[in-house]
Amino acid sequence: MSIQGVGIIGAGVVGQGVLELLESQQARLSEVSAPYEVLGVAVRDASKARPGLRAKIVPVEALLADPRLSVLVEVAGGIEAPFGWVSQALKAGKAVVTANKAMLAERAEPLHALLAASGGRMYCEAAVAGGIPILSALDRGLVANRIVRVQGILNGTCNYLLTLMEREGLGFEAALSRAQALGFAEADPTLDVSGGDAAHKLAVLATLVLGVPVPFARVAVEGIERITAFDLEWAAAHGFRIKLLAHGRFDPGEVELRVHPTLVPRSRLISEVMEEFNAVELEGDLTGPQLYQGRGAGRYPTASAVVADIVQALRGEPMLRARPKSTKPPRFVPLGEVVSRHYVHLEVIDQPGVVARVATALAKTGISIASMFQPDVAHGSQVPLVFTTHPAKDAAMKEVLQAFGTALAKESFLVKAPVHIRIEGA
Amino acid sequence: MSIQGVGIIGAGVVGQGVLELLESQQARLSEVSAPYEVLGVAVRDASKARPGLRAKIVPVEALLADPRLSVLVEVAGGIEAPFGWVSQALKAGKAVVTANKAMLAERAEPLHALLAASGGRMYCEAAVAGGIPILSALDRGLVANRIVRVQGILNGTCNYLLTLMEREGLGFEAALSRAQALGFAEADPTLDVSGGDAAHKLAVLATLVLGVPVPFARVAVEGIERITAFDLEWAAAHGFRIKLLAHGRFDPGEVELRVHPTLVPRSRLISEVMEEFNAVELEGDLTGPQLYQGRGAGRYPTASAVVADIVQALRGEPMLRARPKSTKPPRFVPLGEVVSRHYVHLEVIDQPGVVARVATALAKTGISIASMFQPDVAHGSQVPLVFTTHPAKDAAMKEVLQAFGTALAKESFLVKAPVHIRIEGA
Repeated sequence: MSIQGVGIIGAGVVGQGVLELLESQQARLSEVSAPYEVLGVAVRDASKARPGLRAKIVPVEALLADPRLSVLVEVAGGIEAPFGWVSQALKAGKAVVTANKAMLAERAEPLHALLAASGGRMYCEAAVAGGIPILSALDRGLVANRIVRVQGILNGTCNYLLTLMEREGLGFEAALSRAQALGFAEADPTLDVSGGDAAHKLAVLATLVLGVPVPFARVAVEGIERITAFDLEWAAAHGFRIKLLAHGRFDPGEVELRVHPTLVPRSRLISEVMEEFNAVELEGDLTGPQLYQGRGAGRYPTASAVVADIVQALRGEPMLRARPKSTKPPRFVPLGEVVSRHYVHLEVIDQPGVVARVATALAKTGISIASMFQPDVAHGSQVPLVFTTHPAKDAAMKEVLQAFGTALAKESFLVKAPVHIRIEGA
Repeated sequence: MSIQGVGIIGAGVVGQGVLELLESQQARLSEVSAPYEVLGVAVRDASKARPGLRAKIVPVEALLADPRLSVLVEVAGGIEAPFGWVSQALKAGKAVVTANKAMLAERAEPLHALLAASGGRMYCEAAVAGGIPILSALDRGLVANRIVRVQGILNGTCNYLLTLMEREGLGFEAALSRAQALGFAEADPTLDVSGGDAAHKLAVLATLVLGVPVPFARVAVEGIERITAFDLEWAAAHGFRIKLLAHGRFDPGEVELRVHPTLVPRSRLISEVMEEFNAVELEGDLTGPQLYQGRGAGRYPTASAVVADIVQALRGEPMLRARPKSTKPPRFVPLGEVVSRHYVHLEVIDQPGVVARVATALAKTGISIASMFQPDVAHGSQVPLVFTTHPAKDAAMKEVLQAFGTALAKESFLVKAPVHIRIEGA
């Protein structure tokens, strides 16, 4: 068997981990896949000193043009540039391994077209839930199943923040500072806390489940920035945990994709997934629900997934489920149509008649209150007022919240924007 | 591509599920693997009426001799007979798919020799944890990892019984009757409640992790028959759950394999796996710990795994990790050498001096008591006496328990055999 060339773009934390494994496990990995050599690593800034880097640095153009290149590994990050490299490699008949969920999600449609046209192969296990072999489970182990539902904790930073807020009674900003100091949140955490990163991963998962590309704009997203220590306390006292949960429902012809803070009953195993851990619950029509939990980020967990993909690429194994085909795309259900129970936490001015006014506003919309709670704890002249609803359409709930935020706010009993969390299950 | 013949032995619950899927998904499965036809199904009792069976019944000899046979699927159960069929198929160069953990575990060594000699392929995803694609995760997704540790809830009947005992305060016998009535325990539950079935599965897992066959006798086994409602109450009050846990520790050259009731701290996600669900926690050196949870039995979950294996077999994909090789077998650490904390529950005669005598007996062995507890609840003249120990060698603990059961029992303060549960973690 001739030696296959592996080229890597990106020498960050993951890229270095991949290089280390490809070198230290060369004999074993070659034996189970095919003999390979690392042709080199392309980096953004070739002038930066990289002591101990286990490969020679080469310009990205040279790497892509190298006739020995068989597998391109893209672990650089970004969207436009990697999309260009990956497109070029696929057109040239190279296999591609990528960990880049942002590119996969935001360029799903052109990538899909490219894969279909070129007959190329692309592997992306590391893009979703890091070291947890969730795509491989979907593609191989669950190949006989129709996937009915997916729920996931797909962003370790958010799960770490929510764990810290619950355990230590911290507010969002305090928890974020702590997480940043400990390396569990980036200096600019926007993509994580806004839900954007989890939404990218859900889009990648959904594309694999459906076999048609999911337009990223069809994934509804809300972040955890408004969640307070009070909400986590309320959840704990009522048998819930708050999770940034990614939801995918796959009915024939109709698909629902959304990422938002969710009150998850403690009876659900996924509610017990804490700290920086990720988890994905897959429901197959044959297997029923299955939970996969593990580390979703970090040098070695992610490199583990990238190397597993490189082995698949070297072996020439196709993705069984994600066959680029002209299947009719499903209808993507807008968030407004989704029916769930709701939790709303208002901070209101402590004055007579407020509860009545809130209840009256809700009554007008037809949304039925399940519980209402105003604890006897004034923060100065401000008090929390919490209510939960019976199942109601998201659009109706949003309308009420907007009314609170405009008309009612003019009557100035609302101190700040409401916290709105959808309630999962029962 | 020529059509490959699939032959099935066994038309029980799983066999019928497999037949149904092979028929209903023929087009899709053929497309991702290879065109196939079901040659027939062999059954133990060909005279039994099987209305609606989706394949013709053929004698097992005819099936095995059929030149069109490409993949033999063994879902019959038993040990000696299936071992014979599987051996014959492997020798004839057929691929084998089996769900038979008992045969795999109790015939590990000859099967391994056969696979090595014949260069044959055998797939057994359904043998461990039913529909959870745990072997595929080990073999593909975690291919770059050295597996350091495995812990599993591998027997759904035991987990269901322990859940029932905890939730409803039932004794073992009462829970068993209930589980039998509900179909969660067999008429003869011995293999399940004794830990034997979980031990079979652990042996299969360990054989795959190690790449050398595990002699089944090297797996230490204890069952859940002695556990009482009192023990589950104690566990709940002290932050634990009792699980029949399978433990595998894989150090270079040294392996520890044991199945026994275990007090698992509630901080561990696996402690939250309830009812008939199975779970496996795998720790890779790169990924860290990962938990896989789902249904471990039942027609469709198991058939899902069998069909995934049939797809692999039709595609000619090898098991990457389980390469039959003349690797040096590791040392299997005997249970007596394992160090852990222990929980012991004695039922003693309610008379002065008993606590002193138990404490003195322990002091003599050098085992250090961590806590001792004699609640003020006499059952007639009999009271429970519970103690936990600091870490101690299993052999030393066993010696004390034996002493309680012999010498001390002659002094007649022990009413029945002690309940001994090892404590996991901290």
